[in-house]
Amino acid sequence: MTAKRALGVCYYPEHWPQSRWPEDARMMRQAGIRFVRIGEFAWSMLEPEPGQYDLDWLQQIIDILHGEGLEIVLGTPTATPPKWLVDRMPDMLPVGEDGQPRGFGSRRHYCFSHQAYRAECARIVTVLAKKFGAHPAVTAWQTDNEYGCHDTVLSYSGAALLGFREWLAQKYQSPQALNRAWGNRFWSMEYRSFDEIELPNATVTEANPAHRLDFQRYSSDQVVAFNRLQVDIIRKHAPGRTILHNFMGSFTAFDHFAVSKDLDAASWDSYPIGFLDRDVTDPERRHRYLRVGDPDMQAFHHDLYRSCGRGRWWVMEQQPGPVNWAPHNPSPLPGAQRLWAWEAFACGAETVSYFRWRQAPFGQEQMHEALLLPDGSINEAYETVRTLNEELSGIDDSAGSSRATVALAFDYESAWAWSIQPQGQSFSYLGLAKIYYRALRALGVTVDIVPADPEHVKGYALVLVPGLFEMTEDFCRALGQDGQVVLAGPRTGSRTGDFAIPQTLPPGPALQQRLDIKVRRVDTIPPPEFEPVGDAASGFFFSTWREFLSAGDDVVVTERTADGAIAFCHNQAGNWNYLAGQPNAAYALKTIERLCDRAGVPTTHLHQDIRIHDNGPLRYIFNHGPEPVDIAQLVAGKDVLMGSAILSPCGVAICRQQ
Amino acid sequence: MTAKRALGVCYYPEHWPQSRWPEDARMMRQAGIRFVRIGEFAWSMLEPEPGQYDLDWLQQIIDILHGEGLEIVLGTPTATPPKWLVDRMPDMLPVGEDGQPRGFGSRRHYCFSHQAYRAECARIVTVLAKKFGAHPAVTAWQTDNEYGCHDTVLSYSGAALLGFREWLAQKYQSPQALNRAWGNRFWSMEYRSFDEIELPNATVTEANPAHRLDFQRYSSDQVVAFNRLQVDIIRKHAPGRTILHNFMGSFTAFDHFAVSKDLDAASWDSYPIGFLDRDVTDPERRHRYLRVGDPDMQAFHHDLYRSCGRGRWWVMEQQPGPVNWAPHNPSPLPGAQRLWAWEAFACGAETVSYFRWRQAPFGQEQMHEALLLPDGSINEAYETVRTLNEELSGIDDSAGSSRATVALAFDYESAWAWSIQPQGQSFSYLGLAKIYYRALRALGVTVDIVPADPEHVKGYALVLVPGLFEMTEDFCRALGQDGQVVLAGPRTGSRTGDFAIPQTLPPGPALQQRLDIKVRRVDTIPPPEFEPVGDAASGFFFSTWREFLSAGDDVVVTERTADGAIAFCHNQAGNWNYLAGQPNAAYALKTIERLCDRAGVPTTHLHQDIRIHDNGPLRYIFNHGPEPVDIAQLVAGKDVLMGSAILSPCGVAICRQQ
Amino acid sequence: MTAKRALGVCYYPEHWPQSRWPEDARMMRQAGIRFVRIGEFAWSMLEPEPGQYDLDWLQQIIDILHGEGLEIVLGTPTATPPKWLVDRMPDMLPVGEDGQPRGFGSRRHYCFSHQAYRAECARIVTVLAKKFGAHPAVTAWQTDNEYGCHDTVLSYSGAALLGFREWLAQKYQSPQALNRAWGNRFWSMEYRSFDEIELPNATVTEANPAHRLDFQRYSSDQVVAFNRLQVDIIRKHAPGRTILHNFMGSFTAFDHFAVSKDLDAASWDSYPIGFLDRDVTDPERRHRYLRVGDPDMQAFHHDLYRSCGRGRWWVMEQQPGPVNWAPHNPSPLPGAQRLWAWEAFACGAETVSYFRWRQAPFGQEQMHEALLLPDGSINEAYETVRTLNEELSGIDDSAGSSRATVALAFDYESAWAWSIQPQGQSFSYLGLAKIYYRALRALGVTVDIVPADPEHVKGYALVLVPGLFEMTEDFCRALGQDGQVVLAGPRTGSRTGDFAIPQTLPPGPALQQRLDIKVRRVDTIPPPEFEPVGDAASGFFFSTWREFLSAGDDVVVTERTADGAIAFCHNQAGNWNYLAGQPNAAYALKTIERLCDRAGVPTTHLHQDIRIHDNGPLRYIFNHGPEPVDIAQLVAGKDVLMGSAILSPCGVAICRQQ
Repeated sequence: MTAKRALGVCYYPEHWPQSRWPEDARMMRQAGIRFVRIGEFAWSMLEPEPGQYDLDWLQQIIDILHGEGLEIVLGTPTATPPKWLVDRMPDMLPVGEDGQPRGFGSRRHYCFSHQAYRAECARIVTVLAKKFGAHPAVTAWQTDNEYGCHDTVLSYSGAALLGFREWLAQKYQSPQALNRAWGNRFWSMEYRSFDEIELPNATVTEANPAHRLDFQRYSSDQVVAFNRLQVDIIRKHAPGRTILHNFMGSFTAFDHFAVSKDLDAASWDSYPIGFLDRDVTDPERRHRYLRVGDPDMQAFHHDLYRSCGRGRWWVMEQQPGPVNWAPHNPSPLPGAQRLWAWEAFACGAETVSYFRWRQAPFGQEQMHEALLLPDGSINEAYETVRTLNEELSGIDDSAGSSRATVALAFDYESAWAWSIQPQGQSFSYLGLAKIYYRALRALGVTVDIVPADPEHVKGYALVLVPGLFEMTEDFCRALGQDGQVVLAGPRTGSRTGDFAIPQTLPPGPALQQRLDIKVRRVDTIPPPEFEPVGDAASGFFFSTWREFLSAGDDVVVTERTADGAIAFCHNQAGNWNYLAGQPNAAYALKTIERLCDRAGVPTTHLHQDIRIHDNGPLRYIFNHGPEPVDIAQLVAGKDVLMGSAILSPCGVAICRQQ
Repeated sequence: MTAKRALGVCYYPEHWPQSRWPEDARMMRQAGIRFVRIGEFAWSMLEPEPGQYDLDWLQQIIDILHGEGLEIVLGTPTATPPKWLVDRMPDMLPVGEDGQPRGFGSRRHYCFSHQAYRAECARIVTVLAKKFGAHPAVTAWQTDNEYGCHDTVLSYSGAALLGFREWLAQKYQSPQALNRAWGNRFWSMEYRSFDEIELPNATVTEANPAHRLDFQRYSSDQVVAFNRLQVDIIRKHAPGRTILHNFMGSFTAFDHFAVSKDLDAASWDSYPIGFLDRDVTDPERRHRYLRVGDPDMQAFHHDLYRSCGRGRWWVMEQQPGPVNWAPHNPSPLPGAQRLWAWEAFACGAETVSYFRWRQAPFGQEQMHEALLLPDGSINEAYETVRTLNEELSGIDDSAGSSRATVALAFDYESAWAWSIQPQGQSFSYLGLAKIYYRALRALGVTVDIVPADPEHVKGYALVLVPGLFEMTEDFCRALGQDGQVVLAGPRTGSRTGDFAIPQTLPPGPALQQRLDIKVRRVDTIPPPEFEPVGDAASGFFFSTWREFLSAGDDVVVTERTADGAIAFCHNQAGNWNYLAGQPNAAYALKTIERLCDRAGVPTTHLHQDIRIHDNGPLRYIFNHGPEPVDIAQLVAGKDVLMGSAILSPCGVAICRQQ
Repeated sequence: MTAKRALGVCYYPEHWPQSRWPEDARMMRQAGIRFVRIGEFAWSMLEPEPGQYDLDWLQQIIDILHGEGLEIVLGTPTATPPKWLVDRMPDMLPVGEDGQPRGFGSRRHYCFSHQAYRAECARIVTVLAKKFGAHPAVTAWQTDNEYGCHDTVLSYSGAALLGFREWLAQKYQSPQALNRAWGNRFWSMEYRSFDEIELPNATVTEANPAHRLDFQRYSSDQVVAFNRLQVDIIRKHAPGRTILHNFMGSFTAFDHFAVSKDLDAASWDSYPIGFLDRDVTDPERRHRYLRVGDPDMQAFHHDLYRSCGRGRWWVMEQQPGPVNWAPHNPSPLPGAQRLWAWEAFACGAETVSYFRWRQAPFGQEQMHEALLLPDGSINEAYETVRTLNEELSGIDDSAGSSRATVALAFDYESAWAWSIQPQGQSFSYLGLAKIYYRALRALGVTVDIVPADPEHVKGYALVLVPGLFEMTEDFCRALGQDGQVVLAGPRTGSRTGDFAIPQTLPPGPALQQRLDIKVRRVDTIPPPEFEPVGDAASGFFFSTWREFLSAGDDVVVTERTADGAIAFCHNQAGNWNYLAGQPNAAYALKTIERLCDRAGVPTTHLHQDIRIHDNGPLRYIFNHGPEPVDIAQLVAGKDVLMGSAILSPCGVAICRQQ
């Protein structure tokens, strides 16, 4: 399916006088906006008293927008149940790890496990879907808003406890089986019945990791079920419409692949500058990209959510200017918003939608910029949208993404597992995945981020599988097909699904059958400690995490650490490779470059600020830095559609492969 | 009214054998002490069993002190209700933000909203006021002790919830009006009745800032009402006595101007070294002033509380040596205590009273030094008092302060608002106010710190209004009179009283009528990032907070930032000025100096350790540094009453303007 | 009593199939292991249903081990009560300082004060003791496991509240006496009955230090009583067996001397690398000893627990490789495990026992290394044990330690007191004791760490008494005998047993009778501030804590600080010495060296990585550093039994004094 690339905006008509609505709609059309997301967060206005609905205003704004030729993304309002509903069943509130309920007064004040709240959600969604499902302008729906935001996936409520016990009973069938799977003989943690099991908070010291992982799995399943309930209702009453949910950045608390399976397309909320101040700690990087965001952070999520949406994905909320929620909130460099949008489209986005239309003068987000100022006049990002709209029509504007030749396997369970058991507190699964991803990007390689299952890794020339919790035989068999090159490690295959060390030691029997190694020891070292790889002058090293391997005779050891341990090795054929530690940027680059060579994937060493995305015949080139950069070599012999050989700060170039 | 400058001390006779009391009283008199504060914290000794009073010991010590010619400041004991009272009504305990009661076992274990506890306070204060109100030696009263200490202004109790709902009902009259004022359409936070409203703690993410601000206003009002109840009783039974409360440093959780309106004089507890270790983070400043305290911190509070007391104010607790409550507790440099006392008198203090008479060998404050050692012998600060007493008699010893020509408007609501919504976590209203205050001090300018209301800003040559939450028409009209020079910004006038962005954008219509600017964007940047102002060599910059303004044609732009935004601008007449960011010290100095010039206020660049306070005909000069400083220029042509042209470390010079 | 030096291991047969047990036992014997600890944590397998015991498997493994000639240390399983027991009496759970119960799901989920849980412990211990008390292979018992781990000594439960009130009633007999002792007139904290007293958590600000200290004393007493209950039962049914408990490192929350009085021998769990990452903050030290542990940390505890065990002590758990519980968990340098074991034996350990036999593939400690890998094959530490076993037989292998000539008095109450009242947040009693200990070690002096009571300090040439809370006349009298040299201060004798400042000021009358000084002032300064001692070039200084003394005429002042205060002084005879601040390493060395000279204790300046322990005729020399060190001078003229004059990294040398 090929969609047109489109621009969108998030709109809260209920915040503004009805008299303004026609003008807003006209201005949207004039800017070239196609999609307008409305409705989420509006429950108290849609149902001001229990059972008394007021849908007229919504009908009215939909009609006004429709009148300007705009399409509507209708959001379900379930992220903000009204106070009267909470007062009717206060036990619907989520409960924190400290055992205290998290109350009304902001948003997301519900526990995913609460069945009666789910019924209330089904009720309001049904009302909306019946009313607007067939409206010609309502071409897309968004379920809820940012599942899990404000740390709401895990809730330690009574509802969660009951649900978890039932879930465990279904999974294990007997307490004895559960005891065996979790290893509950350890510390006398054995249970005689499922009703004895508690949630894994409030323990004296850490709970059993298997207990915690199952609770995370259970909790993720509740998000899936919560979402599916809404999807099913919408699909029934609004057939043929695109159903989306807006995911977040750097967020792994539930399985986004699993939730996405029920959606037609994925979307995410992209705030490059907010994420930088919140997530990036390296001082140089923070300084250099203060006003444009980390050069790899957005693309990482674009590539991830493209995979979640099976090729169909949006940016549902794009940062328009300074926001309100990061520790500090700088304004973007001139051109940064344009760069972000083009990067999303390069990665195959169908729609880039801005949050939000007009800055709210009240409420929690009054410092969040928008396309319009609070006084209703035009702000910088409105102009950006207008420019983008013009540029889009000048370039082939079909969305969708061609398949890359390199895949990075990403796995939510692994993120949970290593967050439960970091072993070295500076270890992070997401951090490890990003080290590999950054190295690929620095080499100019376009990458697909895929779930770690057999069906999604086939056909790539190179597949990277860092830190994957469990390596099953099925998965290895899929990886091994057609001689594709695989990079595993560190930590890959080091547990069974029950969170136990494999009987044959890590990386487990399936991988060991292909590459004859055993991880005998793990060594985590506190920053700034590191272990050099090869000779000291190389500049290569491991930090945070490294392993000591024993290897069979037919294993080829390419590098060793200064203390003589295996750093990198592969099988005779060279297609099964293992990296025995967390590499620094230089060593990650060297390792990935070598494997790309072996897999026949072309690489090029990019300037630190330059990033490339190849999509079908088009090559997109981005300059995230504050200075112009000469990219003549990257566009040499190609047909330059946009930009020039000296790429300005925040510049975007597009060329066609010949 | 002109009072004599006096020395005082805080005394706990109940901690010592009665046999010692006469000697203590004699030693006080010999040191030249006039006021002795007693009684606060003594409830369990005044009423050992419910309703059974024991006032004899208090009568006795009052008589003994009276016999030595000393005057008594009688404290009400309401900061330490006895255990039997708490056990009778455990719901009088304050409740923390985490929802847990804060129990008995230290002090301030009461919730300001608890009506039955207020009644108990009225009862014990009535008993004391009736008994001692007419005693000739009891010439002053202190209500309670350090309202709000240990974070006790905000209490999330059931009593507070009921009180808050009633307060809201009185303010808004209908839930619909409240919903409109707070913008509760945002996130479906609408209420159908006042009984649905909760306290703003325990929300999933941040509560509505309007909700939080109203709770802070409500809580401040409870402190006012709590204090007024006691004042009314004391005034009835002890007419003509001076009624005080002892406020704290760097504390803004309630409106001190409002509480002070019911008092005859303000007082505060000044611990220069304790504040330095607790509040000052700049490493150089911490090192340089380790044993003398920040050179501007004490004066800031002197100037603030002089205003609270409408010219009448005391230091109720002056640091006598190392204390016990800061992270570390260094001892003062020789001479530091003398410097502190003289600085207070320079700023118009009626009394400087030391905490405490004799170091307690038991209890929570046993490491807090005093005039006497725990063994009853004389400690260093006793000698300081004796010296001060002699020096005071050599200098014109009338208290009171002449009016300054420059005013800094200080507003507690603004402190609450920006603490609720910092936008950049390094932003602090108090910090911003101190940047301006420091610049004035570094220029040798004496300043009044005044409430931001029309009646208090009139008549000054220059008024600084940084970060004022709301700019009303009334206030602007008062500021504009007589051509006084006004400096606003950053953040000034950026909200309505309902915590909403003004419809015409910040700084709001009233200010915009005088200076035609709009704040279109706010940019907060994480330290150590900064934005240069003017050319790079200037050394001027903004950090933490800056704004992007649009300005009308008749606005004069004096400086721009490196990226071209307006840094400083004013109207054609030059009396309305706006600074569009948080300046570093150098740029603050330059800005203030320019405005002083325009306003006809003389300035001089002082040595970093030297500070001046002009009070009527007298100029006081202080050296806060560890080396002697040549101040010849500052005293040239003046009549030097104390000190010399080479001012020693911790030295004080006084000269008479001719 | 002289025992053979032995090796041991901690074994969890219940984690492995019975079919493996014989092989494990054989492998243990082959490695030269003598003691096998089993059974602790196995309650749910010993009593799977209430009152239904399953001891057969335990009998079986004991017999198998016995069959290989191994001896058993049988652990009582009371650190891990099963879920069914907790569900029967949920109020047995410990309660955190925040008032929340700490639940089931890990270990140590019991409150020491809970009488019904104590009865349950008595029941299960009786069952085990009756069954296995007479078994010839069960030659030792361990009570519970790591009392207090995970911060479980202080529990704020209902049981603790009742117990504490009764304990106070017994101690003080009347509330009035308690009020006087605690100084409760301060802040009206007076109680009318013991039933009014609360636990000292949840107060608005800090509770009375006397209140907190008594609660710590009470809580420590509960640990003693809890342990004694088990010891009495075991001793009755298993006479003649060695009863031990395994203490921890850097842990002072209960009085280990008091608990040890009921034991036959002390033991502790030694994790040199885990402690380094958890406890050591100096970056250079962290880097240099990353993979071997702090050179003084292990010996400090060896010396401490040797004293607890009255000469008889074990290492019950010795680190075998990387562990799982420190922030990061590096692997040891080759040879580090051997060094650790020899250091323990040098200090007189009877047994060094490894934790654990085989790495668990499941549960909370799956990343904790062991002698065997999870797959049952041999790991590095197994080889270390084998090597050690061979080496042991080559050297005189009798355990026990000769008495040192220098003693460092260590006192748990002082640790509690100064943790309650640090006065400067960087002050730590344990830290101060270690400064003195390190200086002794750097001078090559072997030291006994002894309780601060009269009977244990007699007969030493030099006794160091830093920071001792209370100096009684009895203790001073014992110290003064035979002209031994005593070093007191800083903070020594600064409180009475009631946590009050002595009437004659610190260091209190008993010490003042010997050395005529008074501490008039305490000065705590935040790092990196310091106060030089003597002239600036000396490199000597005080940091964190210093005191201002007044001294009688016959006091000899040796050094003064830069600001003229007494730094070090002594009486005319030179046997009573006082250091008036916390010295840096250089000044500590100088001070201790001077006192050793005076006491006739020989010293030598050691290389930073080298440490010595003299034990009877043998001198042990250890190299904790990463480079070889020339130790020729240390072994000159001695009979070298092991090692050589160039001591390799992690090297151990043993020589015999001639």
